[in-house]
Amino acid sequence: MKRIGVADTTFARVDMGGAAIEELRSTGTGFKVERYTVPGIKDLPLAAKRLLDERGCDIVIALGMPGAQQIDKTCAHEASSGLISVQLMTNRHVIEVFVHEDEAEDEKELAWLADRRAREHATNAYDLLFRPERLEANAGKGLRQGFDDAGAIL
Amino acid sequence: MKRIGVADTTFARVDMGGAAIEELRSTGTGFKVERYTVPGIKDLPLAAKRLLDERGCDIVIALGMPGAQQIDKTCAHEASSGLISVQLMTNRHVIEVFVHEDEAEDEKELAWLADRRAREHATNAYDLLFRPERLEANAGKGLRQGFDDAGAIL
Amino acid sequence: MKRIGVADTTFARVDMGGAAIEELRSTGTGFKVERYTVPGIKDLPLAAKRLLDERGCDIVIALGMPGAQQIDKTCAHEASSGLISVQLMTNRHVIEVFVHEDEAEDEKELAWLADRRAREHATNAYDLLFRPERLEANAGKGLRQGFDDAGAIL
Amino acid sequence: MKRIGVADTTFARVDMGGAAIEELRSTGTGFKVERYTVPGIKDLPLAAKRLLDERGCDIVIALGMPGAQQIDKTCAHEASSGLISVQLMTNRHVIEVFVHEDEAEDEKELAWLADRRAREHATNAYDLLFRPERLEANAGKGLRQGFDDAGAIL
Amino acid sequence: MKRIGVADTTFARVDMGGAAIEELRSTGTGFKVERYTVPGIKDLPLAAKRLLDERGCDIVIALGMPGAQQIDKTCAHEASSGLISVQLMTNRHVIEVFVHEDEAEDEKELAWLADRRAREHATNAYDLLFRPERLEANAGKGLRQGFDDAGAIL
Repeated sequence: MKRIGVADTTFARVDMGGAAIEELRSTGTGFKVERYTVPGIKDLPLAAKRLLDERGCDIVIALGMPGAQQIDKTCAHEASSGLISVQLMTNRHVIEVFVHEDEAEDEKELAWLADRRAREHATNAYDLLFRPERLEANAGKGLRQGFDDAGAIL
Repeated sequence: MKRIGVADTTFARVDMGGAAIEELRSTGTGFKVERYTVPGIKDLPLAAKRLLDERGCDIVIALGMPGAQQIDKTCAHEASSGLISVQLMTNRHVIEVFVHEDEAEDEKELAWLADRRAREHATNAYDLLFRPERLEANAGKGLRQGFDDAGAIL
Repeated sequence: MKRIGVADTTFARVDMGGAAIEELRSTGTGFKVERYTVPGIKDLPLAAKRLLDERGCDIVIALGMPGAQQIDKTCAHEASSGLISVQLMTNRHVIEVFVHEDEAEDEKELAWLADRRAREHATNAYDLLFRPERLEANAGKGLRQGFDDAGAIL
Repeated sequence: MKRIGVADTTFARVDMGGAAIEELRSTGTGFKVERYTVPGIKDLPLAAKRLLDERGCDIVIALGMPGAQQIDKTCAHEASSGLISVQLMTNRHVIEVFVHEDEAEDEKELAWLADRRAREHATNAYDLLFRPERLEANAGKGLRQGFDDAGAIL
Repeated sequence: MKRIGVADTTFARVDMGGAAIEELRSTGTGFKVERYTVPGIKDLPLAAKRLLDERGCDIVIALGMPGAQQIDKTCAHEASSGLISVQLMTNRHVIEVFVHEDEAEDEKELAWLADRRAREHATNAYDLLFRPERLEANAGKGLRQGFDDAGAIL
């Protein structure tokens, strides 16, 4: 039985962690979910590390929703750098799922985007753990999570 | 008996550490506070690490007030990156509470904001240590510390 | 028998990993290729580290195609920093092959550039592993991968 | 007998290290000074680390004078990040004393600023080592090093 | 017998490594040179680390020539950060000698600048290893490598 960690925040305006968990459960079996909610994205690196170190996870999905201002961009950069460090310290993947508030035109699109990106990255996490051959088959295919795929250049 | 570290600075123009400690004490019991004051925010990562390594803290609240200029933004970025490193080295949370001088319109609002953000993050630290289920219940709810909550998108 | 790792992404719009592998095979023998495909460039540092730590690679080529927006530039910076960390943790080279979407005028040039840069860096990886004297002979020669060489200033 | 390290550069246009040492000696006793001069600010992190690791220092003051151009700002950022890493690796404080050339209106003010900031941070280092209660008493007081204190917001 | 490592690139348009070695040899004796050429500046951190870890160097000079575009500035920043990490991991100096293409007015000045900066930093490396008292004597003197010294403010 594998364990998939889901780290999310109270700052996000959409229940991205819930969407990821729902999608994981509709994708396959053979895993348990461990959830860890923190205040903001800068708390996610430690949440991911503790899920891996202390709660036995084999992979983590880290979800957050940075704001639209410059300071939020900087926070996201710090969090992303931390999430990469966690991976290099544990040799396990942490799939970052960030939706920036200014990626969407309005609240409705933001909610749609956050939900869809969370779900598509949940599938990526599942694939990395259970069927990596699906990723290799899609190498260079221009896949995107959330908005439409860009596609391969033929 | 748990220990909560409070790291703050002589640079800040508001006693954010004092506010955090007061709020912690009004929130619950079962913990001791360890305080460590340093000159500026770039000294906070080590203060946090020593609180965790040498004074037995289970969590740290790191409070500071970066100035409004570009150089101050860079300092804050360096300090934030260091605070994330501390967490990954110790597997303990360090809750960053930074109030940028240019977030407020005037000194009065700045003092109000620093006090309120310090208190709301003190509660977050308490929750992470004693009642993490409260955070999970608020996942995706658009919570903010200081200014009003953004709220969940329904 | 040496092992050369090839880490690439499903985000890229060109099969850069495939081009690198083809070029390696036409350059020489004495090595096996290990491929590891991940969703995006921020997943490449761990892919590279696992290729080195868990699949016995002596060197890794990490290929990706960051988008043209500011957020993509930040992602590329985070990934690049992570790739340098991997090298310092393993004492093995990871040759980064990134093609930014805005380096090319159109899709046709982008595909050409991605293919050519992947191939020229595959040769660099081969040289680092099997014939480092070729690199030393070209020190200060203004070599480029993809577009034309700048050349030495005479 | 404690040891205080002083790391400085040949790049700076003012003898900031000398000023720091003079101030330390006029502030108290019970310590020895170890000095380590390097070419530029990017060499300061290692100088600080060696002062701590190899010459037995209990704290280090790292002084430098970055130039006014963008490249100099980037160098200062890299040096500052390195100085924070040193602290986390050694659990000892490294007090950064940087004076940016464009903080001052002319050479005369630059020399004054560099001297005064070096001296005020020398006192901070002394306090961290010998009388930390002085720092805690000044938490949130808006202290500055060099230019006038901003003061607490009452 | 000491060992001085020289790490350089095929990307640079001037043989900066060659200039550094020539200058070292005209400055003194008592050392052997180890050279390691890599494709670009982002490969320099590992080259420096391997020179220190695997080829017994006591110090390394890392030379490169970043381009004039924003992406090149970012690469240089990543490489510089890596070079600082190498120093903190090995407790040995790595003297960075970067010449940005846009520092010079034309190719002729660029070649002159690269040569002179490489030579002046080769002397710095020699001094750090064999006569550190020369650096301390020049603390705060406003020395520069390449263009004219700024000089001390009197």
